[in-house]
Amino acid sequence: MTEADFLAALRTLPLHPGAKGLADDSALLAGLTITTDTIVEGVHFLPADPPQDVAWKLVAVNLSDLAAKGAVPEGVLLNYPLSDPAWDRAFLAGLREVLTAFDAPLLGGDTVSLPAGAPRVIALTALGRSTNDPARTGARAGDALWVTGTIGDAGAGLRIARGEDGPAELLAAYRRPTPRLAEGRALAPHVHAMMDVSDGLLLDASRLAAASGLAVTIDLAAVPLSDALSALAGDDRAARMAAASAGDDYELLFAAPAGWTPPVAATRIGAFASGAGLSLTQAGTPIPLPATLGFQHQVLPSPRP
Amino acid sequence: MTEADFLAALRTLPLHPGAKGLADDSALLAGLTITTDTIVEGVHFLPADPPQDVAWKLVAVNLSDLAAKGAVPEGVLLNYPLSDPAWDRAFLAGLREVLTAFDAPLLGGDTVSLPAGAPRVIALTALGRSTNDPARTGARAGDALWVTGTIGDAGAGLRIARGEDGPAELLAAYRRPTPRLAEGRALAPHVHAMMDVSDGLLLDASRLAAASGLAVTIDLAAVPLSDALSALAGDDRAARMAAASAGDDYELLFAAPAGWTPPVAATRIGAFASGAGLSLTQAGTPIPLPATLGFQHQVLPSPRP
Repeated sequence: MTEADFLAALRTLPLHPGAKGLADDSALLAGLTITTDTIVEGVHFLPADPPQDVAWKLVAVNLSDLAAKGAVPEGVLLNYPLSDPAWDRAFLAGLREVLTAFDAPLLGGDTVSLPAGAPRVIALTALGRSTNDPARTGARAGDALWVTGTIGDAGAGLRIARGEDGPAELLAAYRRPTPRLAEGRALAPHVHAMMDVSDGLLLDASRLAAASGLAVTIDLAAVPLSDALSALAGDDRAARMAAASAGDDYELLFAAPAGWTPPVAATRIGAFASGAGLSLTQAGTPIPLPATLGFQHQVLPSPRP
Repeated sequence: MTEADFLAALRTLPLHPGAKGLADDSALLAGLTITTDTIVEGVHFLPADPPQDVAWKLVAVNLSDLAAKGAVPEGVLLNYPLSDPAWDRAFLAGLREVLTAFDAPLLGGDTVSLPAGAPRVIALTALGRSTNDPARTGARAGDALWVTGTIGDAGAGLRIARGEDGPAELLAAYRRPTPRLAEGRALAPHVHAMMDVSDGLLLDASRLAAASGLAVTIDLAAVPLSDALSALAGDDRAARMAAASAGDDYELLFAAPAGWTPPVAATRIGAFASGAGLSLTQAGTPIPLPATLGFQHQVLPSPRP
């Protein structure tokens, strides 16, 4: 069953009003923003990834969903499969680092045993307090599309984690993303729509537009690339397309009125209009979309050793 | 790493006050009781178990933790691994049944892909509203120990699921437990301590006593057995010991003042005293504890086909 089919089926179940029709990455309940994400060994992380980094990333990707709502982390719950003690201890060390770094204390959780040789499946649920709750459905025709930070660093970092050459800072972007919590809090009261970029800029921008019932055009030349990525991969159309369709950026993507300037470091990369679908331009000229807009949850080739 | 070692390590991390020192099955935040449980194919359910029943049980075991706090279910979040469409559709059918039966709408969740052949790992987080929050630390010397319903039915049901002969109602007790939500709500304002029986009556009673800093004595003859279980397995000491050390009952176990009578169907099975540890008696005579007090999260022998 595809994710889309499963989601469509879930939407026919009894839904809580705070579920927002399961059209968002987080739910809203009693003033709390709630989000949950699962990571699977061999799918979302590599068996050889340092366990400290796996813990960091698990927490960071959930806090990134809170950031997209301008929420302040309140606490997290962990669903953890016990395995070999060295891996578990290293995971705990990373968990301590990331919970401390983002002031997200542990609220609870659950441990299980896995059958021998089974890939690790680790889930985290994060709860935050938000006073605003920018939807991903609120973009308006004429809004500008903005993104924080730089795009594509984590995609290059994944290639480095798989064995390609490249600088440590790109590998760190893949393994230790920074949830944009402060930026999210500053933006939430002002933006029309916001989400985090987890599956690829183009894919997530197309989702933001679709959720808002709009078309969106992105200027590929405006997509912000880091110096490290440009130095490694160049910044021609192919390099920009690769960056804009790679996953794991965990930057904030938001729609705001055309004349407005964000109070945080961000880059204007496109605009919304009535209609539907994603279009790309470069230097004002329409260019074709890539075959794949983002990360499609494929299973990574490396088996667990 | 053992569960106890991991829990001890988790307790050294930054903890939320609502985590109650990770000494309870649920956390408390903003008037919400929050609990999470993971089930693993080959550990908590059998590969041949009907997917509808797996969904039912996953929700029921989490709602049972809410019941132990007298909480009213507010909603659930699901972490689900997509697999073959027929299994997924059957799971969704069971999910619809159980969410409807206990008025626990879906709040959100997450789907992932698993590497081929990996056992399913499914997590659920349940949130409920509670006005009382009976701790498991509140039992007092002199309190009586009570349990709702009957004990050991699910343990016999597990043996039936594995191929032994037995009646459908015991199999149903294993596959489709009923969280004692109404009983929990009625009991919560009055009891000194409460928890659900998930890992075996003796093991969970010893945990309740330990959390409260007390000794507890259980009269094995008083442990309530269903007619179906007595008919199948007898009610001698061995049968009662097996029932009292089997898991998956999902009844409520609670401490209450000696003279008090619960407003729900429940059986008085023991008493708390100053000291430490679990003791068993039968007809007033001390008897030895069994080698295993309850379910120790062992991996079931059946591999996924």
